[in-house]
Amino acid sequence: MNLESLKGRHLIDPEDFTMEELQALLDLGLKMEARPEDYADCCKGKIMGTLFYEPSTRTRLSFESAMLRLGGQVLGFSDAAVSSAAKGESLADTVRVMDDYAHTLVMRHPREGAPKLASQYATVPVINAGDGGHQHPTQTLTDLLTLQKYRGAIENLQVAFCGDLLFGRTVHSLLKTLCRFPGMTFYLVSPTELRIPGHLRDELQHRYHITLHETPHLDDCIEKIDLLYMTRIQKERFFNEEEYVKLKDSFILTRDKLKTAKEDLMVLHPLPRVNEIQYEVDEDPRARYFEQATMGVYIRMALLSAVMGVKLA
Amino acid sequence: MNLESLKGRHLIDPEDFTMEELQALLDLGLKMEARPEDYADCCKGKIMGTLFYEPSTRTRLSFESAMLRLGGQVLGFSDAAVSSAAKGESLADTVRVMDDYAHTLVMRHPREGAPKLASQYATVPVINAGDGGHQHPTQTLTDLLTLQKYRGAIENLQVAFCGDLLFGRTVHSLLKTLCRFPGMTFYLVSPTELRIPGHLRDELQHRYHITLHETPHLDDCIEKIDLLYMTRIQKERFFNEEEYVKLKDSFILTRDKLKTAKEDLMVLHPLPRVNEIQYEVDEDPRARYFEQATMGVYIRMALLSAVMGVKLA
Amino acid sequence: MNLESLKGRHLIDPEDFTMEELQALLDLGLKMEARPEDYADCCKGKIMGTLFYEPSTRTRLSFESAMLRLGGQVLGFSDAAVSSAAKGESLADTVRVMDDYAHTLVMRHPREGAPKLASQYATVPVINAGDGGHQHPTQTLTDLLTLQKYRGAIENLQVAFCGDLLFGRTVHSLLKTLCRFPGMTFYLVSPTELRIPGHLRDELQHRYHITLHETPHLDDCIEKIDLLYMTRIQKERFFNEEEYVKLKDSFILTRDKLKTAKEDLMVLHPLPRVNEIQYEVDEDPRARYFEQATMGVYIRMALLSAVMGVKLA
Repeated sequence: MNLESLKGRHLIDPEDFTMEELQALLDLGLKMEARPEDYADCCKGKIMGTLFYEPSTRTRLSFESAMLRLGGQVLGFSDAAVSSAAKGESLADTVRVMDDYAHTLVMRHPREGAPKLASQYATVPVINAGDGGHQHPTQTLTDLLTLQKYRGAIENLQVAFCGDLLFGRTVHSLLKTLCRFPGMTFYLVSPTELRIPGHLRDELQHRYHITLHETPHLDDCIEKIDLLYMTRIQKERFFNEEEYVKLKDSFILTRDKLKTAKEDLMVLHPLPRVNEIQYEVDEDPRARYFEQATMGVYIRMALLSAVMGVKLA
Repeated sequence: MNLESLKGRHLIDPEDFTMEELQALLDLGLKMEARPEDYADCCKGKIMGTLFYEPSTRTRLSFESAMLRLGGQVLGFSDAAVSSAAKGESLADTVRVMDDYAHTLVMRHPREGAPKLASQYATVPVINAGDGGHQHPTQTLTDLLTLQKYRGAIENLQVAFCGDLLFGRTVHSLLKTLCRFPGMTFYLVSPTELRIPGHLRDELQHRYHITLHETPHLDDCIEKIDLLYMTRIQKERFFNEEEYVKLKDSFILTRDKLKTAKEDLMVLHPLPRVNEIQYEVDEDPRARYFEQATMGVYIRMALLSAVMGVKLA
Repeated sequence: MNLESLKGRHLIDPEDFTMEELQALLDLGLKMEARPEDYADCCKGKIMGTLFYEPSTRTRLSFESAMLRLGGQVLGFSDAAVSSAAKGESLADTVRVMDDYAHTLVMRHPREGAPKLASQYATVPVINAGDGGHQHPTQTLTDLLTLQKYRGAIENLQVAFCGDLLFGRTVHSLLKTLCRFPGMTFYLVSPTELRIPGHLRDELQHRYHITLHETPHLDDCIEKIDLLYMTRIQKERFFNEEEYVKLKDSFILTRDKLKTAKEDLMVLHPLPRVNEIQYEVDEDPRARYFEQATMGVYIRMALLSAVMGVKLA
């Protein structure tokens, strides 16, 4: 059983899990979404610790909702300023103590690699809830569950990523993971300044022999694609205001741009959005980003119960 | 059954509920206060989301205590700075996502109308926990439950409001609501600069044909009244320090001022107080503001269980 | 039964409890550590309120974990800035209201004596979670439980305190408490500027007829001692940066310094540490500070259940 192999495991990078393990998690996520009441007590007596060294209401609350829906409990901090880190304590020490307080630790950190480091000191499973511009594996799981739910099998899809592909960790995590599924084609739509990092391009092409179609124009692929993954151009990743203002409006999705798209296209977005998807698009049945947020809770329920190895109904 | 009609309903303004619905809630509040243990599991499996865009320990914790006493769970944020709002997300988007995390949303917002807007996007009940200088309906429910508990039927009462009647949203909410009960007389005691807003005076007189006795002297009515509702002169509502200092000490309740008051007068205050009720008054049996805070938990228990439509014992 | 005598009691100073009561608590703590599952529901329906006027992730989360492991619930604030205190409310008023929200209150405050004051207004038990440089009784209980667990009976021990003995409230609380146990000898190792306060030295010598061996050199006692209690030289207690830098490195424990120590020496530290214990020491079996943090959860479980007087399995 692949779920059992996840007991006690950390999730730092989506590649930590095999394809079979990913599929087992997705299957559990769909079951939980269909009948959440069957799982309402399965984490009774368990505690999830949240170590948010960087604020993230969305991700934190999605995890908290997941844990509470499983009958578990939550403690932690949502702001490094209020934590012992402010007193000069090392991450390793913080983790070794938090470890006693909880049965699993969920960590967001501005520094790449911090959750990995934490996992080396923790005796309980550590889940990476985003580390700098690096990885955001539970967002990737969320994206996969949304695809699975609304599209069925994840294979032979034409996928476009649009917006900030340089700094967007959700894009990097999802792109690397989708490469592992069969028959995928990718279009990378971004301004030249925000193309995916060279090392990632090299790695993907080398490992998966995949062609990445890079273009600054969504029109080049809009008619062909099955999934359009939009991203926010994140102000906090820029070094100066001027450059941000210049680029942020370049890649905005409107109702008009969707006119020639397939009827069963799926538009996703990790949220929060600012204006890169116009509000008029929300009404379009192809817009699935709010359903995606809903799926985020179910896949986290599946993940939490799997790594803590609780008995499922 | 009037309680059943509250299932799935928002509470933005006390007028959202009919007199029958208000009475049904008050009756449930009294039952919960009498036998809280009978309701200890009725929100098991339910989650309350708190969206506090402005800090308010008191109101937030009263809601949290209510939800926990019903066997429910709580998640949310208590500070907008830590929320996605800081990333430029619209309120509508935040609500559409939080909606997936919880079975009811409790919102405090510095902007008037924000909870109303939220209720238009939420699929779960939204409860207004204070919006700017506008409404604070659960404080009003608290005040009504205190009256009901310690006075019995709410009718034919002489009521004085004292202090800041211009900016005090608790006063506006309660005043408008008490006008709906039979045989009420009102004295509005405030400095000229802090009299109730003109539009509110006009509305009340026009709709309820009520005489509002406005005076800057508590002495004018202290002997006649059944309820004295004191309010804090809120520093944060003032534009300059000087004006604040000049006015804040004008309307302070002392033991001395209570000498000629009725024996069954009830003194209420929404708290926190600064010095507008002297500590010496706390010993007076007519001081009921701490009991009032207690009632706040029970009426919120009643409200939460009603809007979520849970099965009561 | 000594546990029963703790029902409804405040814990402000370790001296609030008799030796018999302390022993009963320690015994319960060990039982809970051995079989936590037996106590998983004993605080069902109870709420712990946390009033943290000063941030302290460690202590707060240890209390929260304890309460949640007992099946109870938690609410509160972790930062005075977000509380009603910011609106000018007195501590007495805050406590009288929080009192309605919870069955016990845990308070950390930067001002000495604040928890004592709070206990005079609360109708529920108040637990001091640290007040200024004054007391930190639950850290003391943690230290005692660690001694009891790893050493057995607390008697006839040679104990060294090392580091900041002037400002360290954990040292003061533990030192005063250990004086109450039979046959204890103390070595106080600190720079001259950071020796224990004169009034404490006088009090201990007068009350317990105890000799305190004060020295700036750990070498003077390292071979004799059974317990080495290290403390952080806390930056926030200093008036200027220069003095802090000069002193902080003086009292650092290394593997080398432990060479001549007893094999069954126990090294404790209230954590967080900065660099006063080198990481290389962590591997040494005599280092018990992480086990100590674990014990902190169990003794708080014992304390919470005792003061709330819940039925134990």
